[in-house]
Amino acid sequence: MQALRVALAQINSTVGDLPGNCALIASWASRAAQEGAQVVLFPEMAVTGYPVEDLALRPSFARASKQALEELAITLDRSGCGDTVVVVGYLDRDQAGSRNSAAVLFGGAVLSRYDKHALPTYRVFDELRYFAPGSRLSITEVNGFRLGVVVCEDIWQPGGPVPAYAAAGVDLLLCLNASPYERGKSAVRRSIVERRAAEAGVPIAYTNLVGGQDELAFDGGSLVLAADGTLLGRAPEFAEHLLCVDVAPRQAPGSNQDHVPGWSVDRHTLPDLIVRGWDRTPVSVAPPRPDEDLVWSALVTGLRDYVHKNGFTSVALGLSGGIDSAVVAAVAVDALGSDAVHGVSMPSKYSSDHSRTDADELARSTGIHFRTEPIAATVDAFVDQLTLEGLAEENIQARCRGMTLMALSNSAGHLVLATGNKSELAVGYSTIYGDAVGGFAPIKDVPKSMVWALARWRNNEAVHRGEVPPIPAGSIDKPPSAELRPDQLDTDSLPDYDVLDAILSRYVDFDRSVEDIVAAGFDRGTVEDIVRKVDAAEYKRRQYPIGTKITSRAFGRDRRMPVTNHWRVGTAQV
Amino acid sequence: MQALRVALAQINSTVGDLPGNCALIASWASRAAQEGAQVVLFPEMAVTGYPVEDLALRPSFARASKQALEELAITLDRSGCGDTVVVVGYLDRDQAGSRNSAAVLFGGAVLSRYDKHALPTYRVFDELRYFAPGSRLSITEVNGFRLGVVVCEDIWQPGGPVPAYAAAGVDLLLCLNASPYERGKSAVRRSIVERRAAEAGVPIAYTNLVGGQDELAFDGGSLVLAADGTLLGRAPEFAEHLLCVDVAPRQAPGSNQDHVPGWSVDRHTLPDLIVRGWDRTPVSVAPPRPDEDLVWSALVTGLRDYVHKNGFTSVALGLSGGIDSAVVAAVAVDALGSDAVHGVSMPSKYSSDHSRTDADELARSTGIHFRTEPIAATVDAFVDQLTLEGLAEENIQARCRGMTLMALSNSAGHLVLATGNKSELAVGYSTIYGDAVGGFAPIKDVPKSMVWALARWRNNEAVHRGEVPPIPAGSIDKPPSAELRPDQLDTDSLPDYDVLDAILSRYVDFDRSVEDIVAAGFDRGTVEDIVRKVDAAEYKRRQYPIGTKITSRAFGRDRRMPVTNHWRVGTAQV
Repeated sequence: MQALRVALAQINSTVGDLPGNCALIASWASRAAQEGAQVVLFPEMAVTGYPVEDLALRPSFARASKQALEELAITLDRSGCGDTVVVVGYLDRDQAGSRNSAAVLFGGAVLSRYDKHALPTYRVFDELRYFAPGSRLSITEVNGFRLGVVVCEDIWQPGGPVPAYAAAGVDLLLCLNASPYERGKSAVRRSIVERRAAEAGVPIAYTNLVGGQDELAFDGGSLVLAADGTLLGRAPEFAEHLLCVDVAPRQAPGSNQDHVPGWSVDRHTLPDLIVRGWDRTPVSVAPPRPDEDLVWSALVTGLRDYVHKNGFTSVALGLSGGIDSAVVAAVAVDALGSDAVHGVSMPSKYSSDHSRTDADELARSTGIHFRTEPIAATVDAFVDQLTLEGLAEENIQARCRGMTLMALSNSAGHLVLATGNKSELAVGYSTIYGDAVGGFAPIKDVPKSMVWALARWRNNEAVHRGEVPPIPAGSIDKPPSAELRPDQLDTDSLPDYDVLDAILSRYVDFDRSVEDIVAAGFDRGTVEDIVRKVDAAEYKRRQYPIGTKITSRAFGRDRRMPVTNHWRVGTAQV
Repeated sequence: MQALRVALAQINSTVGDLPGNCALIASWASRAAQEGAQVVLFPEMAVTGYPVEDLALRPSFARASKQALEELAITLDRSGCGDTVVVVGYLDRDQAGSRNSAAVLFGGAVLSRYDKHALPTYRVFDELRYFAPGSRLSITEVNGFRLGVVVCEDIWQPGGPVPAYAAAGVDLLLCLNASPYERGKSAVRRSIVERRAAEAGVPIAYTNLVGGQDELAFDGGSLVLAADGTLLGRAPEFAEHLLCVDVAPRQAPGSNQDHVPGWSVDRHTLPDLIVRGWDRTPVSVAPPRPDEDLVWSALVTGLRDYVHKNGFTSVALGLSGGIDSAVVAAVAVDALGSDAVHGVSMPSKYSSDHSRTDADELARSTGIHFRTEPIAATVDAFVDQLTLEGLAEENIQARCRGMTLMALSNSAGHLVLATGNKSELAVGYSTIYGDAVGGFAPIKDVPKSMVWALARWRNNEAVHRGEVPPIPAGSIDKPPSAELRPDQLDTDSLPDYDVLDAILSRYVDFDRSVEDIVAAGFDRGTVEDIVRKVDAAEYKRRQYPIGTKITSRAFGRDRRMPVTNHWRVGTAQV
């Protein structure tokens, strides 16, 4: 018995674009067939994109997905992939409700269907809102290999379909995923795959989606692990890729068993597929990349796909001379090219000289479009009309900048980017309808201390490549200030950002109580002040633009807090 | 055997306010004891408020809820309610996770606990995100009545705890609810309670929360139905209320059974409670109210509680002279009193004379504060600075109004109200950071055709009461216009609102496809145009303020659509 060549197609589907996604699938399947693969594996819900959210509830959308799948099977057959087994995720619907399904396509038809069993309903996932769980195993035998199909969460919990497949008898598990990026997740994923492969005693081919969808960036990183944990191949992150792996036959194949408690078994045996003359494919393992590199790639991917998939061709952002807007501009240049990025300096009477020169330097080093629109005249018009002072005057400056960006967007069609970071958004250091203006907020989930780390990393990368570092040293080194009144500094009312971020991570990302955080060594007064600020700023976050999730708990779909909430420091222990 | 007096306490809890909610519970329990009730029933999660969203995941919050419950039991005992059975909803947490629980309190202690079994995970509900389901029945025998406890969704599906209680043997089911208002829901609730009472063969006491929490308004309407469907009592909607009902003993009490498949049984028998000298309480049935009355009350309740529970004392809104801002102002006056409402007329060069006079008339008829702030100077400052025309110039008018309101809010502490209706929000006829500015949007879920109906209803109510109708006839009768350019009318680019709303209801509220809507008799071109507009406006809705849900599918937590979404008319059948 020969090895089986399995291709993992790590593609970038677009939510709702059934014809486009099917064309993409057909094109990568064709490439896989040319590479001699007998089996091609696509990500979870590759036909519809992921997550489709409430589109999953619309019967007409589910019907269209099923129809697109059937047409895809025919297309594959006509384009010469008819004798390749293609496994692809799509949306199904039957009398029990909608299903997060995977289909096995062969010979121009849908051979078998597997419905996802474990439906994640936590953090960004709402699958029990949408899908009915499956309880039928799909086993397809080809060239002596029995292939079992599972979907994403199915392997994250013990129990479920993996031991059921092991009981039924399989030689390889195909796992379709739409697993979004967050820091450190790829190591977790690998250890999960390793554990399940060991439990099942067979290799697992794990293919993941790549690309951005609203708040999520899918990182790919598809891989194949042997039953003993040996890495048989790994795709790079954040790029479409075809990973081909030759899987060796089992030494001692087990027996088939159709009676598995709690499960039915849908079993198919295909005629032997011709193995074209090929040598063993070399093992391809993408090298690991540093954290900053992956975060940066997630930000670039999230922004690029939001812009392109929503039909924009350019972005505009305010350049304050500070680190946040500099990093957002650099991300935008990497995502879209400098010609698509329009920076606007909007100085006020409180703007320092270095804020203008740093903005100017950024524009020169990155080659983006740059213009200056002083806000004095518009601010004065409001101050005169309404006799503003104090906070109202501070806010009107930020809002005149927001209005200026929106007006330029209305005139030229740019998508406006908000440049706030996670630390600011957490404590409410953001002016609603001011600097919070925008269609997308690329670094909204990046804590301020990581913004600096990313800036340094990106500049170093430029040096290594022999390019001009994009981010001005002045923007990195100067103390952060909103410059809304004379000599204002962020540290006037906040602790240093390393302390702030350490507290925020515990409170926001890990739901720790004030007592827990104080016990970890932080000053009680500081912790209580920060926690109070976080709770009070929920209403601002509700109206903030969406942006790419990179931490374990992003504001947005990931962290859902009531606005009206009396659970506050002072009234009781938080 | 005597009748049992059951009190249903329909209270207005506040999310997170454990001490406040417990004080409220103790005070209503005390009243119930004085009324001679042996049993007092509070709503679902009355101790924590509902929904607590991700607070449910925070272990420190669950600990505090359990501790508050134990202290409440002691407080009740000390305040003379120790020999009253108090059943109250709270948040529990054990090794399986958080629980949506109901506790039976008696004699200063927690006697028994029931964990909600059916966890709704659809529309606005995410309970499988938060709670582990219970599988233990709680039966407390008092004065010969065996009381079973269920929570909300437990009675909405067949199966589950209701037949299990019937098998175990109970004489009365106590159902704790936090069931938010939507149009027509109260009839559905009653028929559900009727069905379950018939199935179980025992009466059901159904108590519901009242009050506003972010997007939700809870309408109360607590009721008791006999096994044969007889209405034994019904509380009014949208008011805190204590409903006392005397439940007659069963003629032929059944036997006890502790072996119920799939369930364990927690059974307690209390010493006989003293029945104080009282006559049978008269049957109290709140009369049914018309649809407009209930919708209006929901809007008033949602706004009032958002304002008060978030610590505001006043609101500001722009008065355009149109119907939307007039209705919002009238709702605000009913919710907060005229002295707490600040109307601002912000005329531009395109504003008609009648828009100013209608705004002025509204201010006079309602007695709200009123000022005029022309936007010409601020608009001109932007137009001159940025050389704006067309859409950019239209939008800057709306945005200068938004900035004006926010500046007044910053100066005086008003909560700004957005005045957009559901029809506009659906098709994107709203300027982001312009008329979309605000902390709360009272009529965002009210279709335009219903806005008119509400205005007429409210004016008629005023006439019946001998008061001045709040809404100027001119605002009701004139054709709607945004007045952002000369002679602009909404009907320039939209069908009549009755047609628009009929299409929107099918597409938005009921997820019908274009084909279905066309088949219902609407013009294909019109339907496709509307559907395209709805899909394209998702990004605006994401940043829109929250507002009270009144329809079967409100924008917000209730309808979750991706922003990036290629499932559009034209690319394929929607």
